[in-house]
Amino acid sequence: MSITKQNIIDARFSISEHIVRTPVLRFSYIDSLCGCNVFFKCENFQHTGSFKYRAAINAIKSIPSEFKKRGVITHSSGNFAHALSKASTQLKIPSYIVMPFDTPKFKKDAVKLYTNNIIESKSTLKDRIFTANKIIKEKKLFFIHPSNNMDVILGNSSCGFELIEDYPDLDYVFSPIGGGGLIAGTALAINNFSERCEVIGVEPSNVDDAYRSLISGKIEVNETTNTIADGLRTNLGTLNFPIIQKRVKEIILVSENEILDSLKMIINNLKLVVEPSSSVVLAALLKNKSRFKNKNIGLIMCGGNIDFSNLKF
Amino acid sequence: MSITKQNIIDARFSISEHIVRTPVLRFSYIDSLCGCNVFFKCENFQHTGSFKYRAAINAIKSIPSEFKKRGVITHSSGNFAHALSKASTQLKIPSYIVMPFDTPKFKKDAVKLYTNNIIESKSTLKDRIFTANKIIKEKKLFFIHPSNNMDVILGNSSCGFELIEDYPDLDYVFSPIGGGGLIAGTALAINNFSERCEVIGVEPSNVDDAYRSLISGKIEVNETTNTIADGLRTNLGTLNFPIIQKRVKEIILVSENEILDSLKMIINNLKLVVEPSSSVVLAALLKNKSRFKNKNIGLIMCGGNIDFSNLKF
Repeated sequence: MSITKQNIIDARFSISEHIVRTPVLRFSYIDSLCGCNVFFKCENFQHTGSFKYRAAINAIKSIPSEFKKRGVITHSSGNFAHALSKASTQLKIPSYIVMPFDTPKFKKDAVKLYTNNIIESKSTLKDRIFTANKIIKEKKLFFIHPSNNMDVILGNSSCGFELIEDYPDLDYVFSPIGGGGLIAGTALAINNFSERCEVIGVEPSNVDDAYRSLISGKIEVNETTNTIADGLRTNLGTLNFPIIQKRVKEIILVSENEILDSLKMIINNLKLVVEPSSSVVLAALLKNKSRFKNKNIGLIMCGGNIDFSNLKF
Repeated sequence: MSITKQNIIDARFSISEHIVRTPVLRFSYIDSLCGCNVFFKCENFQHTGSFKYRAAINAIKSIPSEFKKRGVITHSSGNFAHALSKASTQLKIPSYIVMPFDTPKFKKDAVKLYTNNIIESKSTLKDRIFTANKIIKEKKLFFIHPSNNMDVILGNSSCGFELIEDYPDLDYVFSPIGGGGLIAGTALAINNFSERCEVIGVEPSNVDDAYRSLISGKIEVNETTNTIADGLRTNLGTLNFPIIQKRVKEIILVSENEILDSLKMIINNLKLVVEPSSSVVLAALLKNKSRFKNKNIGLIMCGGNIDFSNLKF
């Protein structure tokens, strides 16, 4: 499926009444520190605390009508579970969430606010899929993948679209890469609505599947998921990878210490609650200051769901 | 000294190049919850993480020229210490800070970034003043009180001035009350630049000196300082009290539980880092929802300096 400019416009206006048009914040402290103009697109202020709500609304609005009574299902331990359960409540569609049994309590609690249909699985991806498939068959539900789904990608594109509309002079937009849905949507929007702005991906060194995939030309997998950026542990998918290959020229890797340091800076100095998956993009800029001197840089703060009781600083 | 509209305008434009014109954020979650339109004036994004930076810049800019080489001094364990030390560095004036010896480390560290002249005192107000006076005499410094100083009050007025300029249709602005400097400045600005908007003060029940002072007509003191809203423990002063008496018709009291619940809501749901002194105003609105239905309410988030390592949630 080839995405057109009109698809991106249609998705945005289809979801606009349901989502927050998130503010773009600026911090003179960061501008001075980095020697450039930095624009924080604050998806931590989105409903359910992450950009995933854009995806969830768009994907649910796009399901075939015969599923509207039976409902939708996904497997996710994190922000997409939260987003899909709230979005489905808003749109009056039943939702089922497969979650690993060892999902942190604060994440389970967030989903429980919106649906009672939480099905526990073992923590492997294989078992999540197996469990989801069983229920899909049983209840004839519509499956929505958290990142490898074109309506999810189109929903995500509304974030970059708003950003480039607000700041058409951006030179670069830095997007985190987890499953690849956010950066694919961002690159589609930025490439379609800006002639000069480039999208740069950022990934933790410990889960550098996208970085390796761009080099090898095929989808690589992560051997471990050992990063504090819990939203970025997943692998690329078959739908978003070709978009990333075509539209993202570069991925910057950041270490765990760099992620943690930039997280502390955002929380302690900028006074924004973000999760480590957001702070990766500031970390990437901080370690490449000289290269981006005097440029206009958009940083997507993809989410703010962090468990302070587990935070050690 | 009677403050004119022109004094307020002059103060604002005198400090504008040094301060952040802080954003006003809106949250549909809060609007739905409260049944009114709520405008968060985010002084947590101000330099040094609180509105006090406005005061510090304005007060330092206003000192008699003979003190510019010798410097300024204050006694504060919190945000004014931080603000004055950074502002004096910016304006190239030496600063001296008297701090109680038991001031939390994260607050001391913030001040140490800007000045080496930290003088420890015992924790009573009496000893702070005694220690400050000794150094003032010795070094011939200019004393700037954190709240009971007209240039401090005028600096603070720039916050409400910006807010009512951005949102002229506000019906009420809720301001926290500690030493009285913020609400005095806010009331001056709002009364001078809006015909209809009223300023309501909010105070923790445990340190309700302002509430009692408005009733008795004289400055009352707090017997204890037992509140998590550490920025609001201080007493009113002789300069700000007459302004508050004239311009603030009402003070709402909030309990410790209400302060903590609204703090959790702001951090966990709104994704803003604020300190308990900020969350008092949301607490006051939440407990009076029906009264403020459909109104336009400005809430001053006075600061965001909170020690997460001490936070239990």
